[in-house]
Amino acid sequence: MNRITARRKITRITVGAQPLAGEDLLAVEEPLEIRVNGRRLAVTMRTPGNDIDLAAGFLVSEGVITQGDDFNSARYCAGAIDGVNTYNVLDVTLGAGVAPPAPSLERSLITNSSCGLCGKESIDAVRTKSVFEIADDAVRVTAELLTTFPDKLRAGQNVFEKTGGIHAAGLFDAASGEMLVLREDVGRHNAVDKVIGWAVKENRLPLTGTVLMVSSRASFELTQKALMAGIPVLAAVSAPSSLAAEFAVEVGMTLVGFLRGNSMVVYAGGDRIIDAHSDEQAA
Amino acid sequence: MNRITARRKITRITVGAQPLAGEDLLAVEEPLEIRVNGRRLAVTMRTPGNDIDLAAGFLVSEGVITQGDDFNSARYCAGAIDGVNTYNVLDVTLGAGVAPPAPSLERSLITNSSCGLCGKESIDAVRTKSVFEIADDAVRVTAELLTTFPDKLRAGQNVFEKTGGIHAAGLFDAASGEMLVLREDVGRHNAVDKVIGWAVKENRLPLTGTVLMVSSRASFELTQKALMAGIPVLAAVSAPSSLAAEFAVEVGMTLVGFLRGNSMVVYAGGDRIIDAHSDEQAA
Repeated sequence: MNRITARRKITRITVGAQPLAGEDLLAVEEPLEIRVNGRRLAVTMRTPGNDIDLAAGFLVSEGVITQGDDFNSARYCAGAIDGVNTYNVLDVTLGAGVAPPAPSLERSLITNSSCGLCGKESIDAVRTKSVFEIADDAVRVTAELLTTFPDKLRAGQNVFEKTGGIHAAGLFDAASGEMLVLREDVGRHNAVDKVIGWAVKENRLPLTGTVLMVSSRASFELTQKALMAGIPVLAAVSAPSSLAAEFAVEVGMTLVGFLRGNSMVVYAGGDRIIDAHSDEQAA
Repeated sequence: MNRITARRKITRITVGAQPLAGEDLLAVEEPLEIRVNGRRLAVTMRTPGNDIDLAAGFLVSEGVITQGDDFNSARYCAGAIDGVNTYNVLDVTLGAGVAPPAPSLERSLITNSSCGLCGKESIDAVRTKSVFEIADDAVRVTAELLTTFPDKLRAGQNVFEKTGGIHAAGLFDAASGEMLVLREDVGRHNAVDKVIGWAVKENRLPLTGTVLMVSSRASFELTQKALMAGIPVLAAVSAPSSLAAEFAVEVGMTLVGFLRGNSMVVYAGGDRIIDAHSDEQAA
């Protein structure tokens, strides 16, 4: 069974023409319950596939694990509906000595909020939670190489071409431009968690010298996930939010938006981007 | 102070040309803490503006309120950072006799999940939570009228034109095509909550005879919000997910995707769509 796309009957209506009955492929969205040592931690709506990467990446994003040994194993719970395993409940066993998430674990934003909640507080809360420092990552990437990433991402996407309804995240080597891993999901945060989860299982954290490229906009949440994995450069096809840009400046992350065709907009950390056709560095 | 967009210094790099220093307007993303009767319920990353609508709509989506009287008032908490009110904490007072959310309130998906978690269970959990029934809504809308909605939505959007980074949700009268309300946010779920919150404060729930149009894809979450508000027709510029389509069929919602130019794809409830150029109804 293909669980990544689902076929459904549809009707295509064009004003002034006969309606056409047909079929359409949709990106599958199903809940995944992530458990840690048998205890439920979170439920996320995701596209099935690379669920173990997703769980591992989620645990990195939440500050529970930081290296391969921290993640011992994961198995689907035997729970079933009508006798069929749904493969929608995943139980993660942490490595020996790794502290499980506190029962009260909530998103860092929530646990750290106070009456005077503001974006700056959110930034501080995340920054102090990360064990990795990216400001000192001396990686450089040429503008020309960056402009090749969207096509590489699109070329590697299986599901988008079929459904038009899914996000992709790819991790690239900043020097060679090689795409190290690509993951897809209806949720962009899940696509990023799947990439980071792959990396932590490969024991590659912190991801110095890499570029995380997303097919979407860049929200605050994506920048915080990048920091938790030690990724120094985040590039997006669309616009960043104000808080994503502020956060990038605060933590020394390079943030690129509107990376399309042969151009891009640099919002933070432009000194990492080498532009061969200019003597000046980007600001 | 304009809190909906933020101006930032950027560098525009085009391969083969001189980099250009300039400014860019970004959609603002900041946390909003929603409290009910003084108790913290949730924190969401949102674009400031129409915060009271957002809080009211969130409470509809969560099944806490269903009519105007249920929502007594809301005020920003006096909490401040550096002596300046952040306007990021909103305390809602419920109407007399309205039960506050249980301290354990979590997303319906989470509280209702079990070991055999699947999409079907999520659908059932949401369906049983809604006090409104939409399957019997006899509203009809012509395909021609539907194709006018994206332009109306775009024409009403202030922030997107400036930032390219924000979602919109609009509520339309299915008979006249009039846009009743438009709301924008970096999060599409927030844009929808703002629309629904406006409606509940106007005591318009259930929203029979209306179409909810979103500038984004249609996820399961958006269909469940539409049901909680009694909206019979959901139209999206982009693709729905598999679970959104399944849910729409289950609850009798009309779901339209890829509504662009003069055409659309109908995923569920096509009998509500009148196509003047065909004798047959859409399937």
